[in-house]
Amino acid sequence: MTAQHRDAGVPDASLGLDDPPAIAGVGMTEFASADDRPLIDLLLAAAERALDDAECDASTVDSVHVGNMAAEAFNERSGLANALTGSLGLTGVTARRIENTSASGASAVQSAFEAVAGGHSTHALAVGGEKMSSADTATATEIISRITHDREYEQGVTLPSFGGLAAAAYLDAYDADRRDLARISVKNHANAAKNEYAQFRKRIDVDDVLDSPAVASPLRLYDCCPTSDGAAAVLITAEPTPNAVSVAACESATGTHAVADRTDPLEIESVRLAGEYAYESAGFGAEAIDVACIHDAFSILEWLEMEELGLAPEGDAWRLTRDGETALDGALPVNPGGGLKARGHPLGATGVSQVVELVWQLRGDLPEGRGVDGAERGLAVNVAGFGNNAVCTLLEADA
Amino acid sequence: MTAQHRDAGVPDASLGLDDPPAIAGVGMTEFASADDRPLIDLLLAAAERALDDAECDASTVDSVHVGNMAAEAFNERSGLANALTGSLGLTGVTARRIENTSASGASAVQSAFEAVAGGHSTHALAVGGEKMSSADTATATEIISRITHDREYEQGVTLPSFGGLAAAAYLDAYDADRRDLARISVKNHANAAKNEYAQFRKRIDVDDVLDSPAVASPLRLYDCCPTSDGAAAVLITAEPTPNAVSVAACESATGTHAVADRTDPLEIESVRLAGEYAYESAGFGAEAIDVACIHDAFSILEWLEMEELGLAPEGDAWRLTRDGETALDGALPVNPGGGLKARGHPLGATGVSQVVELVWQLRGDLPEGRGVDGAERGLAVNVAGFGNNAVCTLLEADA
Repeated sequence: MTAQHRDAGVPDASLGLDDPPAIAGVGMTEFASADDRPLIDLLLAAAERALDDAECDASTVDSVHVGNMAAEAFNERSGLANALTGSLGLTGVTARRIENTSASGASAVQSAFEAVAGGHSTHALAVGGEKMSSADTATATEIISRITHDREYEQGVTLPSFGGLAAAAYLDAYDADRRDLARISVKNHANAAKNEYAQFRKRIDVDDVLDSPAVASPLRLYDCCPTSDGAAAVLITAEPTPNAVSVAACESATGTHAVADRTDPLEIESVRLAGEYAYESAGFGAEAIDVACIHDAFSILEWLEMEELGLAPEGDAWRLTRDGETALDGALPVNPGGGLKARGHPLGATGVSQVVELVWQLRGDLPEGRGVDGAERGLAVNVAGFGNNAVCTLLEADA
Repeated sequence: MTAQHRDAGVPDASLGLDDPPAIAGVGMTEFASADDRPLIDLLLAAAERALDDAECDASTVDSVHVGNMAAEAFNERSGLANALTGSLGLTGVTARRIENTSASGASAVQSAFEAVAGGHSTHALAVGGEKMSSADTATATEIISRITHDREYEQGVTLPSFGGLAAAAYLDAYDADRRDLARISVKNHANAAKNEYAQFRKRIDVDDVLDSPAVASPLRLYDCCPTSDGAAAVLITAEPTPNAVSVAACESATGTHAVADRTDPLEIESVRLAGEYAYESAGFGAEAIDVACIHDAFSILEWLEMEELGLAPEGDAWRLTRDGETALDGALPVNPGGGLKARGHPLGATGVSQVVELVWQLRGDLPEGRGVDGAERGLAVNVAGFGNNAVCTLLEADA
């Protein structure tokens, strides 16, 4: 039921195209705890920045893929893709909104990628966004909690509690200590401090994490991503353009829906499979990755996902963090833009913002001290729920 | 900004495949004003019926495309695609939910079709569903009204009032009278009376329509679709199977978002363009269509859409209705399953249920008096909002 699907004769994703789809332009809004603008204005602002970056007029766009998790609940509105397309002045194009909970953004990127790779679109605009500040806490908590399995929801298990259980199991299984776990957030805040688009542009230290309020033991507030407002956009094209970055792969995989049904509490099957599919499709593997954006909704997830993706040996990711290997000047920088923890996590925007960050890194046009030197290949993984679905995108700078 | 996109070199949708994608199996739940089951159970029931119909085990499915408009608001939940995939026992597959307001179902079919046509999936399951009975009237009204342009929403214009304005304009422009308009609902109820999946299985007459409560003059209650619960599913495969129906085309197009920006109040650009794209892709036109499922959320829309799709000359669709040409035994049966008016309109399910109905019609396996004799080609059009987006699907019985 897993890799068998890959053996069933699914042809190459870039079927029929000489070049893989390329990202011609990217843009995002500054992520924030609360942005005064309506959600549709956030989406439009990100879209316009991506089009400006690509030096493309909106009229070239022939498909619009909006990633959003819960505008119906948070903002009392549906039909975002049509509203955005109208705001862009476009008629006669394909438009749809894609929802995959906290991986809605990457699923929108995947929808756009597939539209271009499959020959249905030449200029596909993927725009992810969420405005969480409009929702009252009860509504937001209910909607976010309900993405778990019904059986677990009914028992009162929430996403942070899954994170706490996994963190406790990891610290128990390996030689990492609680301070190592805190170093993930410390690193991501240090990166965000240099990122003008990040929600939290301040450095923190290990004691700040350990002194922050408990959320789900051993996880504390500074182990957890915030709620955020923001949007991000990428324009994917069939023909490569100057300064474009190639999409070497964009693959997704579901995993076991109920966490209780997983034999190993440290396993995230969806992430492992999405990574395997993506490496196979791209023709290169984990060893080729120079920079990664990992879905650190909770600090512990950075380690679990790195291990599932082969970016660290099993049980060894904590050592890379302790040794500074995942820092911006390390051997494998992880979450150079600050990750979900510090850049922020406007649900439907996150997966797109990871791709935006990678494009900036691979183009090498970031200010001194903000970029990863000489990065040629990047990986982004965006995860739904507590791993019931994951999308892995691999980007490659043009040679 | 319209047909220009088609001239920009978008390759044929079935690029690289010898045969067009085919529908191997279909299924749906009985549509109802209220179904006691949770939404996820409705989706699962429809999916299982489609898999049974195709004689396929769930394990063959490698992508799941869920069409739903507003579960976040109506049912306080997100992540339907992952929950459904979990219920089907699948891991390692692509899963996403597609939202395009009242055309979410057809957009899910389009997503599945493109996945197969583009070589990303060999067995794509499209499942549309909505459970509207869970929502209080205020919530449902708010969410549905907000899919119009902000400017129109803020003026208090609702979808039924757009329908009323269009109906008045049509009756004023042509020789149709109010009783002709009522005949659309009378015909669709007559068809639904024979459809065991329809919400309203009773015949009505013209006076029933004219005596029903006013909604938006000249439209009355029996000119308007109900709110409904239900789900429908289709399995689309890369390889044709016995009894399969080919998907000759599945194309979508946005139209002007604000109705006030349309130069002609009787124009629905999205429907016209989606139809043009679909005919071009399929290689046959309106004259080849033997049976059609038209998005009759309001009676008047059946005429407007038939004319935009070339199924009737401009200003002449009403005559086909008066002459019985669109009845089940007429020259061009329209809405043989009862349409949105009488089969029901569970928003995200509708576009899928139209395709289910066409497959039943084209396979010719419906009971005597329920089917269209000898139908070989069918058209379905599913419309978002008051025409800001439309999806047109063309099916062809295997020779």
